[in-house]
Amino acid sequence: MKVFYTSEHQSHAPESFMLRGQRVPCPEIPQRAEILKKAVSRHELLKCSNHGSGAIEAVHDSNYLEFLHSGFDEWSALDGASPEIIPNVHPNRNMSHVPRHIVGRAGFYQSDTSCPIGAGTGAAAVASAQCALSAADTVLSSSEDRVAYALCRPPGHHAYADMAGGFCFINNVAAAAQACLNHGATRVAILDIDVHHGNGTQGIFYHRNDVLTLSLHGDPDYFYPFYAGYADETGIGDGLGANRNRPLPKGTGDSDYLQALEPELEAIMSFAPDVLLVALGLDGSEHDPLAFLAITTAGFRAIGERIGGLTLPTVLVQEGGYVSNVLGDNLSAFLAGYESSSESVTA
Amino acid sequence: MKVFYTSEHQSHAPESFMLRGQRVPCPEIPQRAEILKKAVSRHELLKCSNHGSGAIEAVHDSNYLEFLHSGFDEWSALDGASPEIIPNVHPNRNMSHVPRHIVGRAGFYQSDTSCPIGAGTGAAAVASAQCALSAADTVLSSSEDRVAYALCRPPGHHAYADMAGGFCFINNVAAAAQACLNHGATRVAILDIDVHHGNGTQGIFYHRNDVLTLSLHGDPDYFYPFYAGYADETGIGDGLGANRNRPLPKGTGDSDYLQALEPELEAIMSFAPDVLLVALGLDGSEHDPLAFLAITTAGFRAIGERIGGLTLPTVLVQEGGYVSNVLGDNLSAFLAGYESSSESVTA
Repeated sequence: MKVFYTSEHQSHAPESFMLRGQRVPCPEIPQRAEILKKAVSRHELLKCSNHGSGAIEAVHDSNYLEFLHSGFDEWSALDGASPEIIPNVHPNRNMSHVPRHIVGRAGFYQSDTSCPIGAGTGAAAVASAQCALSAADTVLSSSEDRVAYALCRPPGHHAYADMAGGFCFINNVAAAAQACLNHGATRVAILDIDVHHGNGTQGIFYHRNDVLTLSLHGDPDYFYPFYAGYADETGIGDGLGANRNRPLPKGTGDSDYLQALEPELEAIMSFAPDVLLVALGLDGSEHDPLAFLAITTAGFRAIGERIGGLTLPTVLVQEGGYVSNVLGDNLSAFLAGYESSSESVTA
Repeated sequence: MKVFYTSEHQSHAPESFMLRGQRVPCPEIPQRAEILKKAVSRHELLKCSNHGSGAIEAVHDSNYLEFLHSGFDEWSALDGASPEIIPNVHPNRNMSHVPRHIVGRAGFYQSDTSCPIGAGTGAAAVASAQCALSAADTVLSSSEDRVAYALCRPPGHHAYADMAGGFCFINNVAAAAQACLNHGATRVAILDIDVHHGNGTQGIFYHRNDVLTLSLHGDPDYFYPFYAGYADETGIGDGLGANRNRPLPKGTGDSDYLQALEPELEAIMSFAPDVLLVALGLDGSEHDPLAFLAITTAGFRAIGERIGGLTLPTVLVQEGGYVSNVLGDNLSAFLAGYESSSESVTA
């Protein structure tokens, strides 16, 4: 399995974020990617190549991208501003205008305090997306590579078309899905197994039926991102029926998770996608510092096996998963599980 | 002129709020009210009386009020929570559900980090609203009292039906306007001269034509509340034409301010309200710590004169205005100006 990586992620190294009214260290740190890189050392490691901005611009608002790339300079010029952009006022309901002031734009384009933007954030986010685009290109272009893994950092699935959030800035898996369509695929499925709902991905494709979005995640009634990820969100307009959410109760373990996964896999096969993209969060781990679910390393292997067993061309896109003793093991286990079942079927 | 006050405001004493990514001291402190109280010492000071919750409940969402009064206990039980509720994630766009978790509810019901909620905040906000209701009751009930002043703290005009924001929790002037209508008035006007747009008041009455809302304020393109307060926001449905915004450029002084005030006063007289309520912010002062406009003490007197000259039954409701050497002087000057012209006409 080819693995796409770039060291450019290191230019995004957030110092802190705001949680429950307190400034605390940010868990989405460069060390994550280095742990994951070590875990895939038996695979062929490739530097991601530049696939241009077309797919990124197709899934993001141009004014948002402009903010992401130039906002930091404006922010830094403010009296008393923090070292990274952290918003303090938001449009919420009953408001509509996009203001010119950087504090107002920050709150318009960042829906929470968990997506601090520093000098290198925009470049790192684009490089991260290029890893996903590289993996997608490989799977679509090569008859030998039925699967590829993009070691994306920062992650992407909380990024909406026009909003950063939850450590995410550019929606890597959404850009890769769009690239697949641009490359000739007619139907694409995105299965999100991060512990947090893939709200940005859902939002980007909510009105479309060429991309089936499915997410299993901690119940948003009690867990980030709180305002989306409920089972009754099924898409709108042309997209009606092309979004599936499976909220899971706190503490859900391997067995219940695998049971909840089954109907989602069946829905994928019914949709008959040309390509499957997996938003591969590892923060469902029982040992993750942001723990909500309780998946073991064996559980990640089993999840990988089940997804590999679909034998679809597959782009694996790294999402969350934070520093713990089992972070690398869980990635290795997922990939080994995926390969074992995809190989056993195709052999 | 009767002045309504209560010491219950002291139970809301926020330690800090988040601004530009930093925790900083909150300027909306009990000392404000004590300075304003001293400034009105030549007037008849009365303790506000309890006018019930009907008018408050008529302009606020019941779930929001429940959050305001009981959210603090839930927040305090969280691991690592700050001493006051400060939200860190917001619904913004593309989200709809109200979650059960207190962190999610905080971001749903608080649109910024400038409205920290402590143990005594809900009670202080209700007491503040009772001051406005007491002043309204006096003006409506007594033929002698054509004007009354409510020394409200915390302020109210940024509070929407279902959102706190900008140091505001219960919309005092909106509740007082509703009380006037409940008391037999058929048309009420609210003129907001706080330096910040009265976004909550606008939001509460945006669809109604029995309350004309007018606001002069710093241009929201560059100033809080950023997302509302633009000139093109004129109301919706039955309320179309019953909302007027006059954004003013940074540094606007007395002369330009008074010129901008004229058409708003004409609009009030055309509307022919039974009662005028003034959302009386003093933070347009050249010396206010949150300065954006540059109104002098003489300017506040002149503004008071112009409003007094309308000779309408008037309820003056304190909004913003932060600690400076001229805070008390500006209130005295406004009230003296108001009385001088209202008396000269009615004499």
